[in-house]
Amino acid sequence: MTANDVHYNKPAARFKLTRVGVSGVRKPIRVRRPGKEVVLTATIDLFVDLPATQKGSHMSRNVEVLEEAIDSASARDIGSLEEYAAGLAKSLLKRHEYATFSEAHIGADYFLDKAAPSGRKTTEVYRLTATARGRREGGRLVVKKTVGVEVTGMTTCPCAMEGVRELMRKRAPRAAKAMADVPMVTHNQRNVTTVRMEVPEGSDVEADDLIEMAEGALSSPTREILKRGDEAALVHAAHENPKFVEDVVRGILERIVERYKNLPDDAEVVVRSVSQESIHKHDAVAERATTLGELRK
Amino acid sequence: MTANDVHYNKPAARFKLTRVGVSGVRKPIRVRRPGKEVVLTATIDLFVDLPATQKGSHMSRNVEVLEEAIDSASARDIGSLEEYAAGLAKSLLKRHEYATFSEAHIGADYFLDKAAPSGRKTTEVYRLTATARGRREGGRLVVKKTVGVEVTGMTTCPCAMEGVRELMRKRAPRAAKAMADVPMVTHNQRNVTTVRMEVPEGSDVEADDLIEMAEGALSSPTREILKRGDEAALVHAAHENPKFVEDVVRGILERIVERYKNLPDDAEVVVRSVSQESIHKHDAVAERATTLGELRK
Amino acid sequence: MTANDVHYNKPAARFKLTRVGVSGVRKPIRVRRPGKEVVLTATIDLFVDLPATQKGSHMSRNVEVLEEAIDSASARDIGSLEEYAAGLAKSLLKRHEYATFSEAHIGADYFLDKAAPSGRKTTEVYRLTATARGRREGGRLVVKKTVGVEVTGMTTCPCAMEGVRELMRKRAPRAAKAMADVPMVTHNQRNVTTVRMEVPEGSDVEADDLIEMAEGALSSPTREILKRGDEAALVHAAHENPKFVEDVVRGILERIVERYKNLPDDAEVVVRSVSQESIHKHDAVAERATTLGELRK
Amino acid sequence: MTANDVHYNKPAARFKLTRVGVSGVRKPIRVRRPGKEVVLTATIDLFVDLPATQKGSHMSRNVEVLEEAIDSASARDIGSLEEYAAGLAKSLLKRHEYATFSEAHIGADYFLDKAAPSGRKTTEVYRLTATARGRREGGRLVVKKTVGVEVTGMTTCPCAMEGVRELMRKRAPRAAKAMADVPMVTHNQRNVTTVRMEVPEGSDVEADDLIEMAEGALSSPTREILKRGDEAALVHAAHENPKFVEDVVRGILERIVERYKNLPDDAEVVVRSVSQESIHKHDAVAERATTLGELRK
Repeated sequence: MTANDVHYNKPAARFKLTRVGVSGVRKPIRVRRPGKEVVLTATIDLFVDLPATQKGSHMSRNVEVLEEAIDSASARDIGSLEEYAAGLAKSLLKRHEYATFSEAHIGADYFLDKAAPSGRKTTEVYRLTATARGRREGGRLVVKKTVGVEVTGMTTCPCAMEGVRELMRKRAPRAAKAMADVPMVTHNQRNVTTVRMEVPEGSDVEADDLIEMAEGALSSPTREILKRGDEAALVHAAHENPKFVEDVVRGILERIVERYKNLPDDAEVVVRSVSQESIHKHDAVAERATTLGELRK
Repeated sequence: MTANDVHYNKPAARFKLTRVGVSGVRKPIRVRRPGKEVVLTATIDLFVDLPATQKGSHMSRNVEVLEEAIDSASARDIGSLEEYAAGLAKSLLKRHEYATFSEAHIGADYFLDKAAPSGRKTTEVYRLTATARGRREGGRLVVKKTVGVEVTGMTTCPCAMEGVRELMRKRAPRAAKAMADVPMVTHNQRNVTTVRMEVPEGSDVEADDLIEMAEGALSSPTREILKRGDEAALVHAAHENPKFVEDVVRGILERIVERYKNLPDDAEVVVRSVSQESIHKHDAVAERATTLGELRK
Repeated sequence: MTANDVHYNKPAARFKLTRVGVSGVRKPIRVRRPGKEVVLTATIDLFVDLPATQKGSHMSRNVEVLEEAIDSASARDIGSLEEYAAGLAKSLLKRHEYATFSEAHIGADYFLDKAAPSGRKTTEVYRLTATARGRREGGRLVVKKTVGVEVTGMTTCPCAMEGVRELMRKRAPRAAKAMADVPMVTHNQRNVTTVRMEVPEGSDVEADDLIEMAEGALSSPTREILKRGDEAALVHAAHENPKFVEDVVRGILERIVERYKNLPDDAEVVVRSVSQESIHKHDAVAERATTLGELRK
Repeated sequence: MTANDVHYNKPAARFKLTRVGVSGVRKPIRVRRPGKEVVLTATIDLFVDLPATQKGSHMSRNVEVLEEAIDSASARDIGSLEEYAAGLAKSLLKRHEYATFSEAHIGADYFLDKAAPSGRKTTEVYRLTATARGRREGGRLVVKKTVGVEVTGMTTCPCAMEGVRELMRKRAPRAAKAMADVPMVTHNQRNVTTVRMEVPEGSDVEADDLIEMAEGALSSPTREILKRGDEAALVHAAHENPKFVEDVVRGILERIVERYKNLPDDAEVVVRSVSQESIHKHDAVAERATTLGELRK
């Protein structure tokens, strides 16, 4: 027996495996975005399945596939992280001839120029994620891909606002009356909302749009630089727009249904919103994992 | 409108939600284990679903359910984390009358007395997880529960061991011959393996047994105190038992099939093994998510 | 040469080392608190220094020292984490005869029963830390110890509150007038504040007191269960007490100076407050690292 | 009183603060390295001190300073992270006229092309850190800066290797004899080593050199792609070069003393090595924090 045979040995215990691969590979990835080229510091996981008859997977092939994708000239023309992931999922199936399934996850911080209420420019950080799953269908390789965003923003609680209004009516009825149409104090907090959508071939799902939808559904987006006037304007606007995590998720679902009318019913959608409650030590969470078809009912 | 109505308002966007609740609640939990009572520092997530017709979930009820479970006299008699989780899943459905689904996750560090190769006692840390999912079935509440363990151990790579043997044959053929039956140097590393199993009513699935199976399937368990003799014995034994992550997962699956002959075919099993590769900056991963029935085929 | 000599070999490069030891050891620790006994899941680091003449430290002795401390009958009578740490620092110097310095860090989650504004009981999580540093002074072992707490609470921003008041004066002058004495909306957020104090022999510095000082200096403590009345009361009170992170640190320093009149001037104090800003993606931080003597000036 | 005055109010409690500022700001930073331009995803902390007479620090100025540094044309010519940090520390003192001290920390993942034993190219990830501390000296601003690297590599334990050799002598004396000059099996593991050095004005301290020194002092560097021949060669070489964490730290100190003969005696040096022990659940740590002068003695 040569050492080379180790991976092909029949395993003592004959079970197939759902996923075998590498996780936490870090690489710089260059992606062409509209009007610019961005360099992302990506964290990547790559998997294939393994039949019961084979002892081990050739894990070094996974990182080779990745390194080749990064070095290849054509990679320069890749316009999105999910295209990147799709290319990796295909190459994984080509290189692991025994595999029937492949999976590539990519995550990376991502920056966009945004505006404070005054219009002043600020650079904001988001997180992009992309997943692609490949399988063999007859002789063809079929890949399904998703794009995801993680957006940090702000929620103001509608329930505590009503509670404080009641309290004020008792304690300071005159002031309470004058404030009938004015937002009351409430707890607000940092919120992290994630949106993940399947990207059917030929569709126009864009990470930048998902970020905009998420920021629009929060009580307010947050901005890294807020001079005094901006700070007051943002805080006031957020209090005129109180939102539970439930509302944030539903607001995004509504925007998705409205925006992606041409996408098929079976396109998958996952939206999750987590408020790092300022009045508690724990977080509040809402989530919907479903398909576009379900949302259209 | 009273403030009290806020949660019952019809939501602007009418979508039901898959999960609404709290995450990251930390509580001390007392569990009776065979022959002892242990106090665990638990991290808990609690969710219910939310119908399209209701604006918000009463999140404070979730933590109340938890606090009551901890304070109630009967809680003192709870013998496992998964029983705890099942109780929480039931209470969640009772308190959230609008919910059709509930979910409780609990995670906690857990300590067991184990032995070094010499028999010397050492205290080892593991992580326990428990999940329970409740739903209404007619007028009844039905709960499905799982128990999980996270075990840190050691893997030694069979592939590099063969590679080094080949290398030795070329560089030092005489020594290589004398070493034909002796384990060769290879890379070894910290490995984190998780096992999660459904616990059907009346079954005897125990976290302590899953820990033992995982430790048995690794190249070697690790121990916090190893005097010199113990250290050499453990290292040598681990090299006589080289394992890919693939082998670790399959070894556990084999033990599960053998051990739980009386469990039903639809019982869910997830086994995942992650080696923090000493020769790479990334990890190696193998996973199987399936049912006992599939494994028995 | 016997294997036993490896640690005593002269190192190729002759440099002494500041710290050599183990980190991230997890153990259950039993501590007697006033009126109760608590079991903590502790994370422990243990170090000694190493002279230039010695190749390696006997690291297994560190964990042995720890295991013995946990098992010894006398450990049952230990009343605080910092006493525990002091015992470990002493034992480390006894067991590492070549060392001139030792250090023990312990961290653990810790729970206290607290009250919501209505008086309703809730269990709250905090983090305790303890550090002890030992050294030889003549034939004696001298140990200096500190106790620390990490408290999660809430800050409301005074600056944005003033900004919103100004904005209201322009947009809704009538309402603004009626609200002259009423707290305005502002951003508020989860805040994590840490206090660390030296504990001179015979002093009465107690973690529970430090927790109370920190909660008192925040805009408001947070509570895990808040029914509607409690929620409104807590939110309103927090807005009547707006605090920058700077104010939180100074408020705690003031309480420490007032409370610990009998402590010596050279007692070390570190206070740090971090607000997880709801309007930004980054945190705001204030810190003072000093001695009681400096604070008394 | 205008809202603008809030930050200048005299604080209720009059204590100066050591650090006030922002932490966790994420920005893309462009740095010119020899022969290339790299884009780093940086995490940044910025602080100034605060006199006892001033209520709050103008935190938004910190992020403005940062945004200006990134946008300014001259920033394009910045050749290192520590230069970047030094520029920030100076700007902080200019913008916070009340401050006597400023501090900037920057951390970022960083990639270098390296070679596997066969010469095959692989891209490896490291972490860069930079710190700059500014103070006023008469009318001048004086800045002290440091550069740091975090390198993930591999250590093989000399002590267990000797232990196994002893064990073999007893169990298989003939094989043991034949193996007298051959590396024995031992535990090996992922190791994370950090080096931080002061960078005096005009010195030639370079992050890339520190990375090379750290990789040279480990049992072996690790590489993301290792085909079978490379894997065996790397594993074998690492076993011919067993290292305690103590050895790694001393090996780097030795290289630093040798390499930086022209640096002043008061230049600060911190070296720390952490092995994620494959035979334990905890880590092994060695550290030296000192000055070049002390190391030269």
